Amino acid sequence: MSRLTLFIANKTYSSWSFRPWLAMRMAGIEFDEELVPFSDGGSNPAFLAFSPTGKVPVLRDGDLVIWETLAILEYLAETHPALWPADMSARARARAISSEMHAGFQALRSECPMNMRRPRRAIPVSAAAQADVARITEIWTSALAQSGGPFLYGEFSAADAMFAPVVNRFDVYALTEDAEILAYMERMKALPPYQEWADASRQEPWVVAEEEH
Amino acid sequence: MSRLTLFIANKTYSSWSFRPWLAMRMAGIEFDEELVPFSDGGSNPAFLAFSPTGKVPVLRDGDLVIWETLAILEYLAETHPALWPADMSARARARAISSEMHAGFQALRSECPMNMRRPRRAIPVSAAAQADVARITEIWTSALAQSGGPFLYGEFSAADAMFAPVVNRFDVYALTEDAEILAYMERMKALPPYQEWADASRQEPWVVAEEEH
Repeated sequence: MSRLTLFIANKTYSSWSFRPWLAMRMAGIEFDEELVPFSDGGSNPAFLAFSPTGKVPVLRDGDLVIWETLAILEYLAETHPALWPADMSARARARAISSEMHAGFQALRSECPMNMRRPRRAIPVSAAAQADVARITEIWTSALAQSGGPFLYGEFSAADAMFAPVVNRFDVYALTEDAEILAYMERMKALPPYQEWADASRQEPWVVAEEEH
Repeated sequence: MSRLTLFIANKTYSSWSFRPWLAMRMAGIEFDEELVPFSDGGSNPAFLAFSPTGKVPVLRDGDLVIWETLAILEYLAETHPALWPADMSARARARAISSEMHAGFQALRSECPMNMRRPRRAIPVSAAAQADVARITEIWTSALAQSGGPFLYGEFSAADAMFAPVVNRFDVYALTEDAEILAYMERMKALPPYQEWADASRQEPWVVAEEEH
């Protein structure tokens, strides 16, 4: 690998940027960060200069450009296998919930966008978003019970990184009162790279009105 | 691994079932097939008996239950690495387009559902679906140009399996006139497992009205 560059957007709002950034920090993978803020709601035509889909995140390794978060994580896991759980069955389940996160939970994602500097305040959410919260609660509860914690599959893995923006959503929209879920969220929020990201978000000058719910 | 069981739904309509089924057949991975047809449009409450999300496909390997197509493919690739391209950069791109397929192209997927026994007939499609067709055309053209074919990354890989239902959509809704794209589609449709799946779909007694566009 050459020196890696991770292209991201606003730390306040870009949930997809947060996932590989956190996974890489937790795995001790060094990289340069290129932050290009959203210009147009949740996008920016300038992303097309480095991203074939016009979306972030993108990982650049020399001439190789990798888009899509799961593909970035799998690419890094080839040389940093600790990104996934060591046990084959746990690894399969970690990938299943990561994939479920990747394409699912649309109601929760649109009604309760990640917002790293939002004061905690409940808002009314639809039945569909409540069902998303219930399914995520089931996923986390089941994984933590099976592994014994402290993270979903024991040690921190890419699956925790995939759900890190949901930790923020559950937190700032006050979506849960489940003690075990709250304890998991506290462990996630206490991770130094999680705090580093949140601290940086509070320094950002940009406000995206569409994301302030 | 124990004897594998792949749970799928209707071969006529279940695009997600088709992906791992085709990948496993092409990789020579033996498995038992359990087909449970849709009862209620594109779903069936009975799926919950074997699927934690109530969706198909699901792969069962002894006590291990794996849901989500990408997780199934990654699990299998650990013991059958030929499912992904051998070259690391090609493998990263193959995973990126597979991930893009997994969560994207919603307009095309809802307007032009996979239908393995539909006679070819064009229908009006939205601008969003046309943009999906354009992006997929770009993905296929670029991959085929880089690899030289005959499949996206040279030999058949999981990335081709991920796009196999789109080959059917481009075909039966007459979505392309691009000669190179049509030639790739013909190579995909000529694969014996593709034909086996299509033949089986024509024997199915079930018609799902919502999927007949």
